Amino acid sequence: MPQNQGDLKFLTSFYHCKSFNEFEFKKNQLITVKGGKIVSIQEASGDIDSDTVVIPGFMIPGFIDTHIHSPQYVFTGTGYDLGLLEWLQKYTFPKECQFDDLKHTRNVYEKVVSKTLKNGTTCASYYATIHPHSSLELARICVEKGQRGFIGKVNMDRNSPDYYTETTESSLRDTREFVKNVLGLESDLVVPCITPRFVPTCTSELMLGLAAIAKEFNLPIQSHLSENKNEISWVQQLHPESETYSHVYYDHGLLNKNTIMAHCIHLEPKERELLREQQVGISHCPNSNFCLHSGVMNVRRLVQEGFEKIGLGTDCAGGYSPSLMDSMRQALIASKVIHIESRNETAKEQFDALHYYHVFYLATLGSAKVLNLDHKLGNFEVGKEFDALVIDMSGIDLFDHDDEYTRFEKFIYLGDDRHIKQVYVQGKQVI
Amino acid sequence: MPQNQGDLKFLTSFYHCKSFNEFEFKKNQLITVKGGKIVSIQEASGDIDSDTVVIPGFMIPGFIDTHIHSPQYVFTGTGYDLGLLEWLQKYTFPKECQFDDLKHTRNVYEKVVSKTLKNGTTCASYYATIHPHSSLELARICVEKGQRGFIGKVNMDRNSPDYYTETTESSLRDTREFVKNVLGLESDLVVPCITPRFVPTCTSELMLGLAAIAKEFNLPIQSHLSENKNEISWVQQLHPESETYSHVYYDHGLLNKNTIMAHCIHLEPKERELLREQQVGISHCPNSNFCLHSGVMNVRRLVQEGFEKIGLGTDCAGGYSPSLMDSMRQALIASKVIHIESRNETAKEQFDALHYYHVFYLATLGSAKVLNLDHKLGNFEVGKEFDALVIDMSGIDLFDHDDEYTRFEKFIYLGDDRHIKQVYVQGKQVI
Repeated sequence: MPQNQGDLKFLTSFYHCKSFNEFEFKKNQLITVKGGKIVSIQEASGDIDSDTVVIPGFMIPGFIDTHIHSPQYVFTGTGYDLGLLEWLQKYTFPKECQFDDLKHTRNVYEKVVSKTLKNGTTCASYYATIHPHSSLELARICVEKGQRGFIGKVNMDRNSPDYYTETTESSLRDTREFVKNVLGLESDLVVPCITPRFVPTCTSELMLGLAAIAKEFNLPIQSHLSENKNEISWVQQLHPESETYSHVYYDHGLLNKNTIMAHCIHLEPKERELLREQQVGISHCPNSNFCLHSGVMNVRRLVQEGFEKIGLGTDCAGGYSPSLMDSMRQALIASKVIHIESRNETAKEQFDALHYYHVFYLATLGSAKVLNLDHKLGNFEVGKEFDALVIDMSGIDLFDHDDEYTRFEKFIYLGDDRHIKQVYVQGKQVI
Repeated sequence: MPQNQGDLKFLTSFYHCKSFNEFEFKKNQLITVKGGKIVSIQEASGDIDSDTVVIPGFMIPGFIDTHIHSPQYVFTGTGYDLGLLEWLQKYTFPKECQFDDLKHTRNVYEKVVSKTLKNGTTCASYYATIHPHSSLELARICVEKGQRGFIGKVNMDRNSPDYYTETTESSLRDTREFVKNVLGLESDLVVPCITPRFVPTCTSELMLGLAAIAKEFNLPIQSHLSENKNEISWVQQLHPESETYSHVYYDHGLLNKNTIMAHCIHLEPKERELLREQQVGISHCPNSNFCLHSGVMNVRRLVQEGFEKIGLGTDCAGGYSPSLMDSMRQALIASKVIHIESRNETAKEQFDALHYYHVFYLATLGSAKVLNLDHKLGNFEVGKEFDALVIDMSGIDLFDHDDEYTRFEKFIYLGDDRHIKQVYVQGKQVI
């Protein structure tokens, strides 16, 4: 599928963000790409070279999904009658355990990567399963199809069903093997990611061992934090020695600038302080937070408190949609709910609803920051890699009064994969 | 576009609802349609006649949108930074006033009817504008394209901008003329609907006059109720003589079994009692309720209290999507939010989240009840008219474990207009 990585030149308009509040539209730009990187961006003037590709619509940076469970794709869009802990037992674990079968793995993971790419996800932080070979297969499929991936072999050595669990020893051994195998693929598209499922399913010994592996190989770490109130109580029971849920990860060496924590809905102020100090990336998963009735996360407050590393996660199958376009809209809705519920609150600015360009930031540059990839992804800047989507608004009705901004707003609210006509990763067209 | 209204025979599986809690899947049914009506539904057995159309996917009843503003389609998907009252002034009134131009009207309304039909809306309760001829044009377009419509010429004679208002006299005169003209079309697809915008923009004299017209012609009535807290306060100031906002409509003869009230978010218990007694239909517009930060309506409580006439409205452009598929998902989210917020409440069953088949009920039979059309629309029963959608799941990934129920659940969560392959209204294929 990926084409030759040639030198590319585009004449295009584009939208991107330079920060949470800096949204920019640039008209008629000449973007030159060499070896997958943007080498120049200039206002178009005069004649256009014959080798320049003229984009009729516009471009945006590729979407980055900071939290998605690849095996759960098989039941995405079903089973939202339970809260997190019961949902894991009834729907998730029975389906995840089937991924010891490599044929099943390939069948499903090819669909996941194809579907997410088609929806504009140029980079995803994946949770696979506890199976190291199956998790490696996901890495291979990402490389084959040209999608960037943080690939996580999941770890769980306690409070897990008999049919889907590991010993501490096997979990650490398999993780080390998995890490080496992913690194052995020698692709700069995929990175192994240390993935303790969450505190309840990981012993202290396992967490400490995983922290050591992450440190040894300088790897990203991902997990779940403060998603569900019953989960939080359970963690407090399991770890009375730690000050809060966040501190459990911190006390086990798993909370630092390489960490991505999903959900983070019910954080206490001292947890938010710890996460900010440690420069942890936060993956906001609004669809899942609604579907599993976990709670409503307040992005605006985190921003007000100084967090920059906030991005979006589809969290399939906790969330029902594999599309970041859906995540953006759900993030808008979540912020509206926060605003509605805040009528009697002081510090009103912490409860302002988000605007369309804010959630666009979250899906692009914000998510790049969460993965510590903002030096090379997230927007159109010289020196960054060229991960981009070509957007065609056909099918979305526009009227005379629409301008560049309302056109884009309509794309955010009404767009879907039909409007994503081409997908580029590292300068290669993959869709 | 509509084909000859012949006799039709289908071999199909279908899903429909018989009540809020009765969701039914029927496999391999022979549905015979004569003159637009279902004359028999039988289990298929033995050979199939050569004139029977075999549906490879499945059928569902057509969707019914109980609340949509056709002129607002031009800015659907933009401008969600304000609450209702400010939003009306800044975005709505300036755009609605342009519909005194019939050319503009036809251009826009053809797009609205085409777009909603494509999304499976076989019947819609429309608000047009204050302009009688333009509103009549909407009725004509519905007839041309084969969509059922309640067509409302909007009334507003106070608290309206100078450039978009009526006198009481002209409003009543134009309404009467409009009603006669729609009835003069002699189509059983369209019905004129008495449409006072909402209490703040209608004097008592106007409301009383409109109630008289509704009574004279035995017409449905539609308006907005209890959408926004500032709106409610304003109504209380305008009508201190009435007990509640709902009582204002009641006191002016506008609240009865022919009435459709949109939003109904913040109703007091005594208002709910009044609405139930009067058998008012409630149009739940969850997308709009989020987007304009109006509030979160509790469907489950209404059902527990005995309401049967509850349906869904897209409320474009207060809601950003013209699709009932979106409304169903937003209704699920709204119910999840209600459930999340109810942790400390008693009477837990009033806060249970809705299931996928509940929102399917709301979009079909529930909405039919809201419009008092459940004797002929809303599900597949002998004697009812044949308004149906043919669903093709192509593009939604299914797996070996999926059964008839998870397949349908995936359609509800992940489907869009691509999966609606054919649309029938009154036995005629219109898409």
